[in-house]
Amino acid sequence: MTRYRLTVEYDGTGFVGWQRQSNGPSVQQVLEEAVTAFCGEVTVVQGAGRTDAGVHATGQVAHVDIARSDDAETVAAALNYYLRPVPVAVLAASVVDTGFHARFSAVGRRYHYSILNRRARPALDRDRVWWIPAPLDAAAMHAAAQLLVGKHDFTSFRAANCQARSPIRTLSRLDVSRDGEVISIHAAAPSFLYHQVRNLAGTLKLVGEGKWQAADVETALAARDRAAGGPTAPPGGLCLTGVEY
Amino acid sequence: MTRYRLTVEYDGTGFVGWQRQSNGPSVQQVLEEAVTAFCGEVTVVQGAGRTDAGVHATGQVAHVDIARSDDAETVAAALNYYLRPVPVAVLAASVVDTGFHARFSAVGRRYHYSILNRRARPALDRDRVWWIPAPLDAAAMHAAAQLLVGKHDFTSFRAANCQARSPIRTLSRLDVSRDGEVISIHAAAPSFLYHQVRNLAGTLKLVGEGKWQAADVETALAARDRAAGGPTAPPGGLCLTGVEY
Repeated sequence: MTRYRLTVEYDGTGFVGWQRQSNGPSVQQVLEEAVTAFCGEVTVVQGAGRTDAGVHATGQVAHVDIARSDDAETVAAALNYYLRPVPVAVLAASVVDTGFHARFSAVGRRYHYSILNRRARPALDRDRVWWIPAPLDAAAMHAAAQLLVGKHDFTSFRAANCQARSPIRTLSRLDVSRDGEVISIHAAAPSFLYHQVRNLAGTLKLVGEGKWQAADVETALAARDRAAGGPTAPPGGLCLTGVEY
Repeated sequence: MTRYRLTVEYDGTGFVGWQRQSNGPSVQQVLEEAVTAFCGEVTVVQGAGRTDAGVHATGQVAHVDIARSDDAETVAAALNYYLRPVPVAVLAASVVDTGFHARFSAVGRRYHYSILNRRARPALDRDRVWWIPAPLDAAAMHAAAQLLVGKHDFTSFRAANCQARSPIRTLSRLDVSRDGEVISIHAAAPSFLYHQVRNLAGTLKLVGEGKWQAADVETALAARDRAAGGPTAPPGGLCLTGVEY
């Protein structure tokens, strides 16, 4: 049995999310089906981040055990061959020790949230950005974001149905920057709570609009109450860009 | 009657191209239908560049005459309202003199051709790039491209069914640059021949692969024969980024 580590890119638009579900195709499912098509084995593909429906990835990491032994390049090429009908691609593969677990060995996750801040609706990137027509103050968003960096109880920014045992997380980076019409939010942490990045993005949007001040973000964080946080930003703007081990 | 100049963005994937055709929806058609939905008038929307099926635009320019008088902002907002179901957006609108013609007044067009140069198939940008897995030498492509800049007979690089009277065009810019896995070709000219940018991109790919040398590009240009030029690059990598007046 050989364990392979896979770096995976996908367009999350047509998927119910990373994780297998009964209500539609998941990224995990199409990867598992590609493994079966390749070697006939029925196996589980474990991912580092269980991204939601509509959330994309350029750097998801997964692992899979295959009884048949092949070099990693062959496995990547074979999976990509069977993945042709779907917007999922294996960018890299390597043979790893069975001590490696894509989810539990991960020590850092990086996400990118993209906002298109212009009057006109997006035509080309409609499934890849959160369109906000009113002008946002990216500098104010960045300043407020710095109050969230560090170790905090993020109850106000996790989904009500989040199943993590602890709401304490350590946000190592939350940067907001503007490049023309596009505002990028870069978030990094050892791990995130359910909907955390989208809830942070939704909250920072309130700051960008001037509806909230930085102090309101601090108040929301201190409240430890989801009702005190901002709205959940739509999934299409979110992309899992990398996982650290 | 008021003439409006429109800057239009679109995802060309699902369209038969800019121009109205009987075999499917065109960008021109959906814009004309949006005008009719807005004001009840049946009119022609004239575009600066007649992009092919699958070719995108972030800076197409068009004009349309409307009997009903409205300010340009109202027209843009109304068209975007009716364009919601399709990946076409009006980025800007202004009232122009009736001497302005989107196509015939244009003195420059800019295109961007995007190549994804990596082993793995694109998942996210599959309709937006030309995927070339073998490593390309972007510097060699750029050097060869400079031999095509200037006023030349581009017969070797125009489609056999190109209907332009003259094959002479003046290429003011043909730059090739690499940013990580992405190779960008920026082309600018007062006007282009049919398929010219895609045929230039297909030819430069041969140089990037090392199959052609710069001298082969000069030979192809001098041949004035389409059969001497390189292949036509696929439409998805091409985007009309701007028009000058």
